[in-house]
Amino acid sequence: MKRLLIPIAAVAMVLSGAAHSEAPDPLPSWNDGPTKGAIVGFVEKVTKEGGPDYVPPTDRIATFDNDGTLWVEKPAYTQLIFAIDRVKALAPEHPEWKNKQPFKAAIEGDMKTLAASGKKGIAELVMASHAGMTPAQFQTIVGDWLAATKDPRFQRKYTELVYQPMLELLAYLRDNGFTTYIVSGGGIEFVRNFSEPVYGIPPDQVVGSSIKTKYEVVDGEPTVMRLPEMNFIDDKTGKPIGITQHIGQRPLAAFGNSDGDFEMLQWTTAGEGPRFGMIVHHTDAEREYAYDRDSEVGRLDKALDAAAENGWVVVDMKNDWGQIFPSKE
Amino acid sequence: MKRLLIPIAAVAMVLSGAAHSEAPDPLPSWNDGPTKGAIVGFVEKVTKEGGPDYVPPTDRIATFDNDGTLWVEKPAYTQLIFAIDRVKALAPEHPEWKNKQPFKAAIEGDMKTLAASGKKGIAELVMASHAGMTPAQFQTIVGDWLAATKDPRFQRKYTELVYQPMLELLAYLRDNGFTTYIVSGGGIEFVRNFSEPVYGIPPDQVVGSSIKTKYEVVDGEPTVMRLPEMNFIDDKTGKPIGITQHIGQRPLAAFGNSDGDFEMLQWTTAGEGPRFGMIVHHTDAEREYAYDRDSEVGRLDKALDAAAENGWVVVDMKNDWGQIFPSKE
Repeated sequence: MKRLLIPIAAVAMVLSGAAHSEAPDPLPSWNDGPTKGAIVGFVEKVTKEGGPDYVPPTDRIATFDNDGTLWVEKPAYTQLIFAIDRVKALAPEHPEWKNKQPFKAAIEGDMKTLAASGKKGIAELVMASHAGMTPAQFQTIVGDWLAATKDPRFQRKYTELVYQPMLELLAYLRDNGFTTYIVSGGGIEFVRNFSEPVYGIPPDQVVGSSIKTKYEVVDGEPTVMRLPEMNFIDDKTGKPIGITQHIGQRPLAAFGNSDGDFEMLQWTTAGEGPRFGMIVHHTDAEREYAYDRDSEVGRLDKALDAAAENGWVVVDMKNDWGQIFPSKE
Repeated sequence: MKRLLIPIAAVAMVLSGAAHSEAPDPLPSWNDGPTKGAIVGFVEKVTKEGGPDYVPPTDRIATFDNDGTLWVEKPAYTQLIFAIDRVKALAPEHPEWKNKQPFKAAIEGDMKTLAASGKKGIAELVMASHAGMTPAQFQTIVGDWLAATKDPRFQRKYTELVYQPMLELLAYLRDNGFTTYIVSGGGIEFVRNFSEPVYGIPPDQVVGSSIKTKYEVVDGEPTVMRLPEMNFIDDKTGKPIGITQHIGQRPLAAFGNSDGDFEMLQWTTAGEGPRFGMIVHHTDAEREYAYDRDSEVGRLDKALDAAAENGWVVVDMKNDWGQIFPSKE
C-alpha cells in the first residue's frame, strides 16, 4: 500500500492544479528560453483568476495569420501553386490562354513572367481558377488537390508542412480558454478546406480574402455561386477590418510573420490592458527557409522594426523551435 | 436509508440519459402539439447516434433571423427607432437637418413622411447616425440607448421584448450540440450589442448588414472607424451569401418570420439529408401583433406560400406559444 501513496498524491496535486510545473510541457517543440517564457508568462497572467491582468474567456481572442505563420509560404504561396495547377487543368477548355498572359506563363510554369504580372496577374489567375462553382464544389477541388500534391523540396503534402510549435501553441491557447482564429490574406474558402482537421479551427473561425458570391436558383436547385469578382482583401489594413467584421472584438493576442500582419499586430497590441503580439521570423534555411526584409513573398521589414518598438515577441525559428514540422506518421 | 434509493436511481437514470422522457421539458413555453413535436422530433432524429439521420455536431448549424423571429419588430424595427432617436440627439450639431428630409421627419417624429422616404431615406438616417465612430464607441451608444429606452406599448426595454419560446429553443438546440447563429437584416454591430447577454450568442456568431470601416492611426491611436457607406445587406438573397461568408457551411436548420428569410430557408432546406425550416407567424394581436401578407414591416407572403410547398413548420404564435415574453423580474 505504501508505494501507492506517492502516485495518488501526485494525481491529486495535478488535479488540484497545485503541481502545475509537474504537468507535461504543453509546448514541447519550443526550446526553453525567453520566447517560450513570454508565451507562457502571458497566458498564465491573463488566466489567473483574481489577478490584476485577468481576462475573462469571452475576451481571450487569438488571431493567427496562416501563410508563413502556421504553414510554409515558400517558394510561393500554396494557394498560388494551386491556382497555377488549376489553370493547367482547365487549359484544354481555354485554348485562348495559350497566347494570353498571365495564363501562358502559368501553363508553361514560367514563374518569372508570372511574378512580373504582379498582383493584377495573380488576381486574374485566381478569378479564372476559383470561380464558377459553388463553395461545396470548390471544397472538393481544393481537397482533392491538397490530397494529391506534394511540395517538391520536402516531399510532403502542404497540409503536413505546418509548424509543429504553432500547432502546440494553438492547442495550448484553446486549453486555456482562448478562441483561436485564422486571419489570412489567402482565400477564406481555401483555408477552410483544412483548417479544422489540421489546426482544429472550424470554418466559422476563419477570416480571409474572398470573391463575391451570388444566390440563385439554377435548374430548380438553390445555389450559391462563386463569381470572378473580388469581394474583400484580408491583408494589411484589411486584417483589422476583417476581424471587426467577422469576430467583432479586438484580439487579445495576434500572431503573424510579415508586413501583411503589421496592422493586425499594431491594432491588437494598442488595446487596453495586457496584449500579446508575436512574429515568426524565418531564420532557418536548413530546416525551412531564411528570409525577411528583401523577400518578395512574406516580406518582413516594417513589422520587424515595429516589433522592437512595441514589445512584440520575435520567434527566432532556428533557435526557438526544436522541431519544425510534425513527425512523419 | 430506504428513502434515499429512489432519488439516487432517478439521478443515475438522468445522468445516463436512460430517463430521457422524465427530464424537465426543455421547451416549457411551447404548447404541446404538432409544432413542438416537429421541433423535438427533428432534434432527436439528427442527434441519435447510429440513427439513419444522424448529423455530427460540427454540421449542426442553426441560423435565426432576429427582427420578428427572436424579438418584436412592430410598430417599427428597433434599430430604426434607435436611428431616429440618434438623429434627434445629434440634431443640435446639424442645423441643416431642420429643412432636409428625411432628417426633418425623423426630428419631428413624422413616421408617415419617413416611411415615404423609402429604403433610401432610411439608409440616409442610418449613415448619419451609425458612422463616424469606432465599433467600441458605437457599442457604448447602443448599449446606453437600449438600457434607457422602453417600448411605449409594453413599457419594457426592447431587450426584454424577446420571445421566451425562442430563448428556450436556442438553449435546447445548443444543449443538443447545435451552434446557433443570428442572421439578421439588421446591423451586425447593433445586434452584437445584446446577442450574448440576451440570446447566449457571442459576437462572432452574429451575421448582419454592415457599413464599411477604415483602419487608420488617429493621433497615434490605431483605430477602426465606421464609415457612412454601405458594405453588405444581409437580407433576402444576402442571407445565404452572408452565411457562406461568415459561417462557411449550409445550415441544418433555419428560423425566420418574413419574406426576407425566404432565400435562407429555401437554401437551407434544399440541402441533402434532414433539414429543418421554421417560420414564426405573428397571429396574436392581443399578446403581441398579428400581421403577414400586407404588412410593411416583416411582410410574410411569398415565404408563407413556400412553407406549405417545402414542409417548413409554421408557428402559430397564438396557439403554439403559452408565453410570449420572459416573465418580469
